[in-house]
Amino acid sequence: MSDVLVAGGGVAGLSVAWRAAQRGIAVTVVDDAPGTGASYAAAGMLAPVAEAAYGEEPLVALSRASLALYPAFVAELEQLSGEHLGLRTAGTLLVGFDEDDARALERTSAFHLELGLDAARLTPRACRAQEPSLTPRLRAGVRISGDHSVEPRALHAALLAAAAAAGVDLVRGRIGGLVVEGGRACGLRLTDGRELRAEQTVLALGAWSGRLPGVPAGAVPVRPVKGQILRLRGEALLAGTVRALVRGRSVYLVPYDQDRLVVGATVEELGFDGRVTAGAVLDLLRDATEVVPGVSELELVETLARWRPGTPDNGPLLGPSSLPGLVLATGHYRNGVLLAPLTGQVVAQVLAGEPVSGPASAFAGDRFSTSTAREVHA
Amino acid sequence: MSDVLVAGGGVAGLSVAWRAAQRGIAVTVVDDAPGTGASYAAAGMLAPVAEAAYGEEPLVALSRASLALYPAFVAELEQLSGEHLGLRTAGTLLVGFDEDDARALERTSAFHLELGLDAARLTPRACRAQEPSLTPRLRAGVRISGDHSVEPRALHAALLAAAAAAGVDLVRGRIGGLVVEGGRACGLRLTDGRELRAEQTVLALGAWSGRLPGVPAGAVPVRPVKGQILRLRGEALLAGTVRALVRGRSVYLVPYDQDRLVVGATVEELGFDGRVTAGAVLDLLRDATEVVPGVSELELVETLARWRPGTPDNGPLLGPSSLPGLVLATGHYRNGVLLAPLTGQVVAQVLAGEPVSGPASAFAGDRFSTSTAREVHA
Repeated sequence: MSDVLVAGGGVAGLSVAWRAAQRGIAVTVVDDAPGTGASYAAAGMLAPVAEAAYGEEPLVALSRASLALYPAFVAELEQLSGEHLGLRTAGTLLVGFDEDDARALERTSAFHLELGLDAARLTPRACRAQEPSLTPRLRAGVRISGDHSVEPRALHAALLAAAAAAGVDLVRGRIGGLVVEGGRACGLRLTDGRELRAEQTVLALGAWSGRLPGVPAGAVPVRPVKGQILRLRGEALLAGTVRALVRGRSVYLVPYDQDRLVVGATVEELGFDGRVTAGAVLDLLRDATEVVPGVSELELVETLARWRPGTPDNGPLLGPSSLPGLVLATGHYRNGVLLAPLTGQVVAQVLAGEPVSGPASAFAGDRFSTSTAREVHA
Repeated sequence: MSDVLVAGGGVAGLSVAWRAAQRGIAVTVVDDAPGTGASYAAAGMLAPVAEAAYGEEPLVALSRASLALYPAFVAELEQLSGEHLGLRTAGTLLVGFDEDDARALERTSAFHLELGLDAARLTPRACRAQEPSLTPRLRAGVRISGDHSVEPRALHAALLAAAAAAGVDLVRGRIGGLVVEGGRACGLRLTDGRELRAEQTVLALGAWSGRLPGVPAGAVPVRPVKGQILRLRGEALLAGTVRALVRGRSVYLVPYDQDRLVVGATVEELGFDGRVTAGAVLDLLRDATEVVPGVSELELVETLARWRPGTPDNGPLLGPSSLPGLVLATGHYRNGVLLAPLTGQVVAQVLAGEPVSGPASAFAGDRFSTSTAREVHA
């Protein structure tokens, strides 16, 4: 019997398991196919600034805190695992394609400056000086120096290796439900009949987190937000991430490895619809080639659809839930890879019984629970 | 030892093998992965009229002769194999998207009428009455009643079963070369060291036919012509094949099964480049959705690239080559599925020592060989 069970071996669950094990906690991760969920389709942008939206200042603070941890997080994982995580620190270039896009970009950049973020307006010419593959038709650009990117599949592989090296057990089994006894989470039931028990259970099932049988209704307000993404291969076109507005639509292009490019992503409220659709692939390819015409010569290697775990305020659920014994590491929406270091650190603190302070305290796992729901389980 | 070896178990090779076996000839087909070449990516249009181009009247005659064999060919194969080949006889609708496309369509249709083919001009409204999923933005249409379509993967499976039932042996091995002795083809050498010998060897390797080691230089003037194609799934949008000109670019949409649609195809002279490219997928999806907007809602199930076996006159190579003992059933370019029944019939006649007459006589296997080359092997 472990001290802690972690349901879900994606980037979030493994970050928690690894950091908890490093503190001497006995951890078992349960997943039938680790790393095949949202982690598998992530682009790996580490972009607290480029993702910043009005009203999401606490999330920006959280994201920046996690980004600050990233270089050491990557260095430690690379050393432990031998994986190369492909950390790029070239920053993000935001570009606007037409006049309306340029105006929208101007508003975003004014907001960035308000927040004191590192965002510098560039002329189209300066954009092309930085990324010569960009179309000459651009109208505006903003350079964000602080953003990074990482290869999420390599990150996942490294976390698996680091967690194993730290003593984390991995059970490859399908989770059927949460075991709840006397108003307390006591472990996990597998579909093969096995029951695993622990003092604390961490829910890190991404978009499925709220649906696990046994989880009280409303306790984990996570919904699937479908994203479709493309992976391409060929000539290296970009040095860093390009995020573009093209006739009002967002598209991003994230280079990785020597010759790879991720183009994403749709944001669709369609439940667990897993279809890659003609319309989404068309939009992504059209917008990407408008901004970087050379994309049309690249090989289309993969088309993918996955689900982000969305929450009511787009922020993650970190720490104790309204159900005693159940700790949350989910709801990361579009920021799962970016928030991995902080998620691992904060949730491991919670598991060790330490208080949470700093920007993560605004993202407590039970912040959406009604007082009634809290009382029921109190 | 067989009487006849057939190199290549695609639609062409199996049609020949099956028909030859039905005549009592002992046939062995050699292929390491039957049906994964051009057959696998074919859309299955049976469209001698829609494909007709200026100067290709002999090919139109050949194609029409093969189309005339199709209903009986399909009925026999379905009965022997239990496969459902999805023969559709709804005809083809040619449509023009803008004014230039409409003018190009008018020229094509004048040529059809010249040839006495069954092509009737339709107003855009009449096009939509026939296929209500078409965009209202069309400028012109032509209905071709005689065209059919068939599901090529089901056709291939049926041919495999029918050939086996007729006594054809299938050797799953990789072909390394043609065995030539004393100026005569004597069989095939496999990469595993085996050597298979026969009186006659049929070359049905599609785009690879001219490159088989041992085949005399220039004897089989076949080059790979790359095509990229998409397979989609979802709401049934079309009753029959739609071929469209969209701003000067050709795209076709071929429905099959209950809920499937093929969208194709690029025509690229790039050698054996097998990459599915962003630009090709973008063009195909853009053009298809311009013509049938509902395509954007379909699931993109497959993206494929394969190579058509092109010849100098776009016609197949049927019958004896300039090398004694080597018989050709290749070079079908865009018409491999359409020409399968006639190819099987004609090449089986050749193997049985019977003369070839009719439209196939214009497509002899050695028609591109220089007299010098013929003398060398005489």
